[in-house]
Amino acid sequence: MDTAAPSAAELVHAVIEQLRLYLAERRRDAAYIGSEYAELTAALEEFVLRGGKRVRPAFAYWGWRAVAGPDRPSDADALRLFSALELLHACALAHDDVIDASATRRGLPTVHRHFADLHRENNWRGSAEQFGLSAAILLGDLSLVWADDIVATADLPADAHLRVQKVWADIRTEVLGGQYLDIVAESKGADSVSSAMNVNTYKTASYTVSRPLQLGAAAAADRPDVQAIFHQIGTDLGVAFQLRDDVLGVFGDPVVTGKPSGDDLRSGKRTVLLAEAVELAEQTDPAAAKLLRESIGTELTDVGVKEVCMAIESVGALAAVESRIAMLHRRALDAIEQAKIDPQAKLGLAELAGLASNRLA
Amino acid sequence: MDTAAPSAAELVHAVIEQLRLYLAERRRDAAYIGSEYAELTAALEEFVLRGGKRVRPAFAYWGWRAVAGPDRPSDADALRLFSALELLHACALAHDDVIDASATRRGLPTVHRHFADLHRENNWRGSAEQFGLSAAILLGDLSLVWADDIVATADLPADAHLRVQKVWADIRTEVLGGQYLDIVAESKGADSVSSAMNVNTYKTASYTVSRPLQLGAAAAADRPDVQAIFHQIGTDLGVAFQLRDDVLGVFGDPVVTGKPSGDDLRSGKRTVLLAEAVELAEQTDPAAAKLLRESIGTELTDVGVKEVCMAIESVGALAAVESRIAMLHRRALDAIEQAKIDPQAKLGLAELAGLASNRLA
Repeated sequence: MDTAAPSAAELVHAVIEQLRLYLAERRRDAAYIGSEYAELTAALEEFVLRGGKRVRPAFAYWGWRAVAGPDRPSDADALRLFSALELLHACALAHDDVIDASATRRGLPTVHRHFADLHRENNWRGSAEQFGLSAAILLGDLSLVWADDIVATADLPADAHLRVQKVWADIRTEVLGGQYLDIVAESKGADSVSSAMNVNTYKTASYTVSRPLQLGAAAAADRPDVQAIFHQIGTDLGVAFQLRDDVLGVFGDPVVTGKPSGDDLRSGKRTVLLAEAVELAEQTDPAAAKLLRESIGTELTDVGVKEVCMAIESVGALAAVESRIAMLHRRALDAIEQAKIDPQAKLGLAELAGLASNRLA
Repeated sequence: MDTAAPSAAELVHAVIEQLRLYLAERRRDAAYIGSEYAELTAALEEFVLRGGKRVRPAFAYWGWRAVAGPDRPSDADALRLFSALELLHACALAHDDVIDASATRRGLPTVHRHFADLHRENNWRGSAEQFGLSAAILLGDLSLVWADDIVATADLPADAHLRVQKVWADIRTEVLGGQYLDIVAESKGADSVSSAMNVNTYKTASYTVSRPLQLGAAAAADRPDVQAIFHQIGTDLGVAFQLRDDVLGVFGDPVVTGKPSGDDLRSGKRTVLLAEAVELAEQTDPAAAKLLRESIGTELTDVGVKEVCMAIESVGALAAVESRIAMLHRRALDAIEQAKIDPQAKLGLAELAGLASNRLA
């Protein structure tokens, strides 16, 4: 089988390069505001460059290549625009970690903890926690501002600029909606599938796959047919991405995922995998059902985590979720194959579809 | 003397009208994301429309009129663009109130308290405070996003769009810088005049006057000469605005300002007025100096507040600050008078200069 060029790994490097150039430029331009501000802009740069799968700019890139002609702008120009998605994501992560009071992100301290530590190391006055929280809010705001600046000043024809701006408006309004619906659902103890799916749609599927694909296509051409197909493909792959996340949250290798093993079980996160496990156990295995009900959302030991994992597997929930991921992956591949888009982009999208569905971290 | 048309009061109403129309449109467009999201967008609308002096869009409006020719777009189109400054400001206020853990804003509960109350009234699970903080972060983010959308989609010629976007990038990067410098200065207990002035420049003078004036002018014409004059005028009026704020924070009528009397004294806010008072008292009045040193930053009674106010007045600090405001006001009026700009705009700018320097709230 042919392979896409650039490869997914090459794309990741090209996105990081654009982020590195852009952040260096913005930091230099902001230096006049005061030497202490450099602490915040350096922390933002470090946080953005530190890691991540860069999956959103990659989807945008292949969405763009799908409908861009041979006289398209350079990859570098396009990736500068799409790297705005990573800065938007950095805002979402920094603020989400404050909202969830999370201690680690990608295996390192979260932004608010980093700044609380800075406060403590310097023996500054007042509350280190409040300082950390404040700095994380401002860092997220700045990341959002610099993301918006990229999109607003992108060198695009007027019609493409309007199309891009529409998708950009939607993705940001939606992801904030998903985050708000999420904290309300948690506060209400809402455990309905429809409530969880609504959050997933806006916080993950649309935000991670559909809208990035559409952003890319919007930058290249006025193709409502492709926008509609990307909505379908994006929804399938976005749900597959979320289900893979659920599986990795329970069965993933902590060294690879950067998240402590059993975190989702201890926090009692309402995932499709766990809902499926409880439902299947209640039908076929009362002992497993009792174990799951009494374990999920409690301070499990490592042995306890292993027992729950075995129960989730033995009642067939892992297999059911894996089979659902495989079905969504297959359906997305078929839609990519049949779409009237650039053949090289089909290869790139197929590679991303595989990563979204079967990634290890 | 001639008066400007529109008057400052008419401008306030016209800005509110644009905000009302825009927020209604965005809220309608976002309804599909889920009925609960409407809680957040309604709270944003209420917060933005509730009150405020609308001083930033007013400066932008007269900055625009200063260099716009007779074939300029309608006031409504221009004010739609400039009302983005109010949405940016709503983000700054909502996030600042979280950072400062403030309880009231414009005489009503701050955003995070509003949502904490909502959580408690509904007997939801988890921490009401954490929910309030989370919702205030998201509300601020959404306000920033919707502000950016206005600027990015403004119907402007390509060159004007680039000029506007440059000022818009600067104002947002600067105000976040001012906020970060502020929390660092507070943590370090920095009380140098230069540190305070740096915070004031980016958090107030540039953000409230200079950049709004420049944003308006940038939307109308390529006039580097006017941009430079607006930088001067903006710095003078911005400092006057801040000094007036300092005076109102101590001597203002709580019914008019919406802030409890003596708040600045009890919180020990490092203002030029208080620094001046301490310095003058040490030179001329040892008893007053002792009173000030032992009172500022403590839980003063209402009688204690009155005593401190009298000391600030008797040592001549109030008069010194008032005279500095008057000098800055006069210098700005002279610069407005001599500038090569539209005569009607001179009247409008003069009216705003008076409000910035001598307002009651």
